[in-house]
Amino acid sequence: MEKFELTILGCGSASPTLQHNPSSQVLNVRDKLFMIDCGEGTQKEFRKHKFGFNRLTRIFISHLHGDHCFGLMGLISTLGLLGRTGDLYIHAPKSLENLLRPQLDYFCRESPFKVIIEEFSTTESRLIYDDRSVSVHTIPLTHRVPCAGFLFREKPKDAQLIGEMLEYHQVPISERNKIKQGADFVKEDGTVIPNKVLTRPAATPRSYAYCSDTAYNERIIPLIENIDLLYHESTFADADADRAPNTGHSTAKQAATIASKANVKKLMLGHFSSRYPNNRILLDEAKSVFANTILANEGICEKL
Amino acid sequence: MEKFELTILGCGSASPTLQHNPSSQVLNVRDKLFMIDCGEGTQKEFRKHKFGFNRLTRIFISHLHGDHCFGLMGLISTLGLLGRTGDLYIHAPKSLENLLRPQLDYFCRESPFKVIIEEFSTTESRLIYDDRSVSVHTIPLTHRVPCAGFLFREKPKDAQLIGEMLEYHQVPISERNKIKQGADFVKEDGTVIPNKVLTRPAATPRSYAYCSDTAYNERIIPLIENIDLLYHESTFADADADRAPNTGHSTAKQAATIASKANVKKLMLGHFSSRYPNNRILLDEAKSVFANTILANEGICEKL
Repeated sequence: MEKFELTILGCGSASPTLQHNPSSQVLNVRDKLFMIDCGEGTQKEFRKHKFGFNRLTRIFISHLHGDHCFGLMGLISTLGLLGRTGDLYIHAPKSLENLLRPQLDYFCRESPFKVIIEEFSTTESRLIYDDRSVSVHTIPLTHRVPCAGFLFREKPKDAQLIGEMLEYHQVPISERNKIKQGADFVKEDGTVIPNKVLTRPAATPRSYAYCSDTAYNERIIPLIENIDLLYHESTFADADADRAPNTGHSTAKQAATIASKANVKKLMLGHFSSRYPNNRILLDEAKSVFANTILANEGICEKL
Repeated sequence: MEKFELTILGCGSASPTLQHNPSSQVLNVRDKLFMIDCGEGTQKEFRKHKFGFNRLTRIFISHLHGDHCFGLMGLISTLGLLGRTGDLYIHAPKSLENLLRPQLDYFCRESPFKVIIEEFSTTESRLIYDDRSVSVHTIPLTHRVPCAGFLFREKPKDAQLIGEMLEYHQVPISERNKIKQGADFVKEDGTVIPNKVLTRPAATPRSYAYCSDTAYNERIIPLIENIDLLYHESTFADADADRAPNTGHSTAKQAATIASKANVKKLMLGHFSSRYPNNRILLDEAKSVFANTILANEGICEKL
């Protein structure tokens, strides 16, 4: 099966610590790499996991707090030193262009590729990227600054042809594309061979949503209903629940409540605060609401 | 003895690799911390070595290439999150103010302390910092962009009084400061007690020079003569010597030649290129010219 894999490069919050790097992830969709957030040190983690720098085409930045974007300059600079020539696209909320461009012009003036920053509004869900493999919609989040999550939906693939059946029914090559796309086959004598005899259904398209940083907000539920994997921030344990709304963050239980109400298949908790020596408490609290929960950690890879 | 200790946080070049972090060091002078250069990931190394963030008062940036300054924003942001209130001074060549200030104003607008950027010219050696423990002069270097090294000279300390001798000669307390500073003691009967009877000489002031990045240039020799420790870049091995001048870098042998001609006590090689799987070749080449050479490495601490 073609890849749809999420690798965590960083799942801490606020500042890099010895336990966690700041936020960054890589979603590999059929061997194209999409980066989500890019805190300081991301390029080193990217290198550690042996991702190909040239396969990285787009970076999605959720919001302009340092722990989600301070790794951009270093990463872009390294791509230049490695001789990249293909354009790099960065999707981000308003202001990144103004903040990053002067540094790009100064530090990367000899860079052999262009950096194209596409800014999006964070007030409503928008389609911000679309190719033949995947679409990406923003998910408006509730934080102290404009912030959006990202919903990656794999595109449905064509059905798979069953070679033996095509041969048996003598389907000419010219008909095969139509059959892949769902058409029945009509023989010269008028006999109809139903599509389902000639094909195996394509694998169900996969889906992933990234929701960090955000206070609890049920408005995101319709956007992420029934998806395969939800990464939801869980900055606080229940004992500190009163701090969550004011700081624009969620508790583990709140993340699990969103997962449960949206009927997602699996929940991954992340954006860990350094205040908890062991994130097990977050896992236990979330599992009391939504059983299929796991903790993010640097290096883990979820194959969907 | 009070501290005069150099700790290497990063000694790689160009991009962070799995072997080396980009340039950064901490010089601890009598428990005040001076940072030299600040590549991406520096704050994490700083944390790893358990330095107190509050003891960091000044950062010296040699030049505006990313591997020497991309860690500044993350470090400054973390200092703010930790509630620092004391001003932070950054000494750097021209342009850092223009490049950094817009990001500081945006990302650190709630920061409880001020960042004061003091820009220096890199064309001649200047005194850029001076307190009662140490002075810092720039060292003009020869690189592709304006670049300076830094010479740290400990201030001479007062001589140490010998308690037993003061008592024996009945030196009144009011005279002691003068004696510390070198005066003889004249008794009421006119007898002169020479200073050297009453004091032990202070320890010899220590000195350290950081020279990265630079092509070979003998003009720096008079500035660093007889110092205790010289950190000199050695980006290239002898086999690649033809690449050094054009890129504004040095070979290990050139670093050693500078060390030898300046009669320094010890040479530390750094700014390692990822092209050499083992830096032993650089060490061997340098030692053929200057025996007391060591390799920099993340975490090593030279106590002077």
